[in-house]
Amino acid sequence: MRVFIIKANEAHTDFDFSLKDLPGTSGRIDLICRSLNAAFHLSHSFRKNVRVYVTFLGPPDPPKTIRFEGSRIKPKILNPDELSTAKLIGKALKASGGIRGPSQEVEVFPGVFVSRMTFEDVIRKNTRFNLYVLEEGGEDLFSTKFPRDNVAFVLGDHIGLSREDLSFLEGFAQRISIGPKAYLTSHVISFVNIYLDRLGIP
Amino acid sequence: MRVFIIKANEAHTDFDFSLKDLPGTSGRIDLICRSLNAAFHLSHSFRKNVRVYVTFLGPPDPPKTIRFEGSRIKPKILNPDELSTAKLIGKALKASGGIRGPSQEVEVFPGVFVSRMTFEDVIRKNTRFNLYVLEEGGEDLFSTKFPRDNVAFVLGDHIGLSREDLSFLEGFAQRISIGPKAYLTSHVISFVNIYLDRLGIP
Repeated sequence: MRVFIIKANEAHTDFDFSLKDLPGTSGRIDLICRSLNAAFHLSHSFRKNVRVYVTFLGPPDPPKTIRFEGSRIKPKILNPDELSTAKLIGKALKASGGIRGPSQEVEVFPGVFVSRMTFEDVIRKNTRFNLYVLEEGGEDLFSTKFPRDNVAFVLGDHIGLSREDLSFLEGFAQRISIGPKAYLTSHVISFVNIYLDRLGIP
Repeated sequence: MRVFIIKANEAHTDFDFSLKDLPGTSGRIDLICRSLNAAFHLSHSFRKNVRVYVTFLGPPDPPKTIRFEGSRIKPKILNPDELSTAKLIGKALKASGGIRGPSQEVEVFPGVFVSRMTFEDVIRKNTRFNLYVLEEGGEDLFSTKFPRDNVAFVLGDHIGLSREDLSFLEGFAQRISIGPKAYLTSHVISFVNIYLDRLGIP
């Protein structure tokens, strides 16, 4: 089982954005769509062993967290393209209006769960996993000794993780890096997924 | 300099597709958009050392090839999201109506060149580069000895390269593979780009 945890600093928390202009109106939900593509899609196949948490922290009603559960998602629900994924996210956010308290989680579509969890709640929920933070200047991925299962990776968005986030994570997670440049979230997920395939980690 | 050459078997050759449904109406130009994102975009930066050729072979007017030249593209022209990239592609295809003969290439936007080149024309034009075909079952990327510069990678789309393509390429290109599964074109490009960064290949 592989987990990806994404902090989406400005991503909108209701379906109040335009599908015609995701970068300009949604707080960069386009980036989240590409990250989900990288996390789940293979050529003519789907990674059922992946779980993704995205914490949405933008207006109008933060925080909201969507959990995407590869083992339960129906292939037709999560397509590779941005627009249909953004629609799915929008509908999930909309359906979450009545949810109260971080412990309540509602399955709005098969394998798509919405809650009021904060980013910190998500991290705390995942401390039984081996947690890694993808950050420039971390230990090289190729030198990292991974366990045989249950790895979880924490990533920022275009804004990244704050100093406070990193200091919060310090007790739980190892800081690692995939290469010498600053990469887009979706590219990091692609790279990590393929690298774990190479290692034979499920 | 890094070159990516993509054969888009069904990608439409005029702006006759709907931006609201790229996967269903464009012959998978959504896939091409994500591949361009993977080829050029870094976090808050742009890969100027990359060139991408995409050969469009779908209806109504094949073949057309668009060359994206990282050193000349204005950052505002090629954005990370699918929709604006699909619009750029659509406009470039539309502007190419009068082009005749594979030797004529027209710069329709800064760094965006359209021609009538076939997939084979593009390969022949790039034989001075060290050519690699990304294919399942090829030599492992991690064992491949790359030259210090001028590498070109050939990729298929969701349909892939045909047996004829592979046999045509056999004289020019080495067959390599990035991992044990079949990956999406954009994920392969992300992986190769980051791996070349790690090797220090420009």
